[in-house]
Amino acid sequence: MTDRSFAEGAEPESALAAFAANLAWDDIPARVRHEAKRAILNVLATGIAGAAEPAVEIALRTMSPFSGAPAARLIGRGERRDPALAAFLNAMAANIFDFDDNHAATIIHPAAPLLPALLAHGEAHALDGRALIRAFVVGGEIECRIGNAMSPYHYARGWHITSTAGIFGAAAGVGSLLGLDAEGQRWAMGNAAVQSAGLVEALGTMAKSVSVGNAARQGMLAALLAADGFSGPARPLAGERGFLRVYGERAGLEALTDGLGEVWEIGKNTYKPYPAGVVLNPVIDASLEIARRPGFKASDVARIELRGHPLLRQRTDRPDVRTGRESQVSAQHAIAIVFRRGEAGLDAFGDAAVGETLAAGRPEIVFVDDASFDIAAVAMTVNMRDGAVHRLDVAAASGSEANPMTDGEIEAKLAALARRAQFPRDVRPLIDAVWALEDVADVGDVARLAALED
Amino acid sequence: MTDRSFAEGAEPESALAAFAANLAWDDIPARVRHEAKRAILNVLATGIAGAAEPAVEIALRTMSPFSGAPAARLIGRGERRDPALAAFLNAMAANIFDFDDNHAATIIHPAAPLLPALLAHGEAHALDGRALIRAFVVGGEIECRIGNAMSPYHYARGWHITSTAGIFGAAAGVGSLLGLDAEGQRWAMGNAAVQSAGLVEALGTMAKSVSVGNAARQGMLAALLAADGFSGPARPLAGERGFLRVYGERAGLEALTDGLGEVWEIGKNTYKPYPAGVVLNPVIDASLEIARRPGFKASDVARIELRGHPLLRQRTDRPDVRTGRESQVSAQHAIAIVFRRGEAGLDAFGDAAVGETLAAGRPEIVFVDDASFDIAAVAMTVNMRDGAVHRLDVAAASGSEANPMTDGEIEAKLAALARRAQFPRDVRPLIDAVWALEDVADVGDVARLAALED
Repeated sequence: MTDRSFAEGAEPESALAAFAANLAWDDIPARVRHEAKRAILNVLATGIAGAAEPAVEIALRTMSPFSGAPAARLIGRGERRDPALAAFLNAMAANIFDFDDNHAATIIHPAAPLLPALLAHGEAHALDGRALIRAFVVGGEIECRIGNAMSPYHYARGWHITSTAGIFGAAAGVGSLLGLDAEGQRWAMGNAAVQSAGLVEALGTMAKSVSVGNAARQGMLAALLAADGFSGPARPLAGERGFLRVYGERAGLEALTDGLGEVWEIGKNTYKPYPAGVVLNPVIDASLEIARRPGFKASDVARIELRGHPLLRQRTDRPDVRTGRESQVSAQHAIAIVFRRGEAGLDAFGDAAVGETLAAGRPEIVFVDDASFDIAAVAMTVNMRDGAVHRLDVAAASGSEANPMTDGEIEAKLAALARRAQFPRDVRPLIDAVWALEDVADVGDVARLAALED
Repeated sequence: MTDRSFAEGAEPESALAAFAANLAWDDIPARVRHEAKRAILNVLATGIAGAAEPAVEIALRTMSPFSGAPAARLIGRGERRDPALAAFLNAMAANIFDFDDNHAATIIHPAAPLLPALLAHGEAHALDGRALIRAFVVGGEIECRIGNAMSPYHYARGWHITSTAGIFGAAAGVGSLLGLDAEGQRWAMGNAAVQSAGLVEALGTMAKSVSVGNAARQGMLAALLAADGFSGPARPLAGERGFLRVYGERAGLEALTDGLGEVWEIGKNTYKPYPAGVVLNPVIDASLEIARRPGFKASDVARIELRGHPLLRQRTDRPDVRTGRESQVSAQHAIAIVFRRGEAGLDAFGDAAVGETLAAGRPEIVFVDDASFDIAAVAMTVNMRDGAVHRLDVAAASGSEANPMTDGEIEAKLAALARRAQFPRDVRPLIDAVWALEDVADVGDVARLAALED
């Protein structure tokens, strides 16, 4: 936004609050409802995957003395906690590997701060699946639009945008479940604005997960407070000292409301096929396919050329990575491990896998910058020691907006992550429940199918 | 700080964490220990005053389902809640009237986000008064120094600095109670950094209190997580995307550590004699004295001249205020109500009092800007209809650093606020317990004396 649009007294809060309060089921295109279900399935998958991570264990242990009645289940675990703590822990777990969904324009992971708040509140109050989908669309739309309004300044300055924007999604979404009117939604937005936090500096440490958990938990509380008459500022976003002025710069107020209810930001959500940096997706696609070719042997690779968008080189030319986390943005490691293992799941980017490629040697890569390439494209040439050449062009990587993961691929991702986590249930009933979510009478059933115990 | 000091790899976190971990009782000058007790007495006073405010009632009602075992008392109330929620509610209440303490260089209210966290944790774990004082000094020193490092940019941009800096105080202070080592203190600092929030835009609404409560609650949790091994970034403050880079600008890293352990920022704490803007203090001092003069009648005032620092005019020339909150920065209302009532307590700045001065008429004031005046000084001339003139010069207002409130005045403030709140206990045992805090074996006794029931 410019100073001018502020001075003119633009009130995007009114439009957003009315949208959140009044969006009817029939106003949501079928395509968008289905995208919500895809996002929900994907975030349940990553929630199951992260449920036993050390950061989650510590937070569960430390915060359990501060839980009320255990009315909500923990995804992928056996415990129950109060809905606020369940939302916190499930959000942490769902985002911990950065393997969750991705709103490409903002790099927000929309579902992690949002779905856990909705599911925990919905379970505690036996709400139905239609209410959950609607609330997910409301919350997802608002968090992505707030993200759009302050991108790219906000993340570049150092805010963890999934957390800082996510809290608005959780507040609006839980507000939707509570049936808040427009004034209530505005207050919920204010209560969210005063709690928005999270730093990029914390990535790679456990502290990263605190702000993601808070986005879910504090967003829920923001809505609950508003429902009980807890007042907030009239202009929490665009006011003189409002959120966008303080956390944004040259933000675009119009991004908050242009096409609201017609152009669906949450409908642009994407899902990651691999737990690595998104720019590596086409490289991993190509590597998987080459690794499957008859007679291909990783140990016979001589030299690799990657032609792609300059960001590919800038972000992933990292031949010397030593940790799982670093390996998520290393083309050298990614290609080496895919060539060796023929797969690119979570374990391919763990510390052990990094040790393996470090010991076995990583391929020499020549990066060729070509700004005509889309970020989701690559041309990969693999020269073998015997003179053979494997060449593969990827125009739009799996998981990109142009080549989204199929429903079946998201199902398979969930199944693979559940297997890895030794999740003891058959995942089919969970998958079926999500695809039929608008017919689920009590979303507690979904939580049950995603938890270890009934 | 300049970009240069970042590039040089300054690590103020190491010094601050070591200070917090290692500060010994004997390292704290007696004067600073006593200042801590004054701050504690003052914040208990404002906590009792705010305990039944509607925002506190709503938050108590809304958040109680999310409380664990009720191990901590609520100041000025009969309920108990878990220490995290008690910290939240007590911090809200203590700051709700902005009548709490004031670190003049930053306008942080240091005690509200800090003492409630320490008291609730201390009560739940039966810690002693010496530990509480030490933790208060640790936390207060760190929050004020972080405030110094980013002032005046940070507040001017729109952050509610009591909340954003206060969470670091609560984290370091509870960390002190937990006996965290330097690494633990650094992690607690990181966990605080990713949760720091609060907007000036919310002032005057209930939402303002959410971030103050969070500073106490989330600060406590930041320390508890760190104590259980929850890791954070190495440089949560001065890192490339650390807190001071993101929330500050042209901040002074040196303010974090220069003279640490020798120059005591928390020793500069001040207390407000009146629940109004600090710039009005000399005006209220003078008005109270003139109102006491024999034969003085408010209705006979013809015209008033105030000579003072230009900020006095800029901030308080508000003849038409309509609400209690607005009246806190109106010289016209302040003088009118003091002349009528002879006192300047909380009720003098309530909605009813504003209605009273509006109906009865407020005096005409001529402001004379004089930059040679200190902000704590005023020359007041009151011309009466009969030609008499009352003139009074205040060189250093009550509550300023040069003319601090006496211990007895803080006691009287507590007594007056307790009376107004119809606090049923004799306050003398509470006052005595705070002055003798280093000899209190269980700080739960202090909480008990500040609560409605044993």
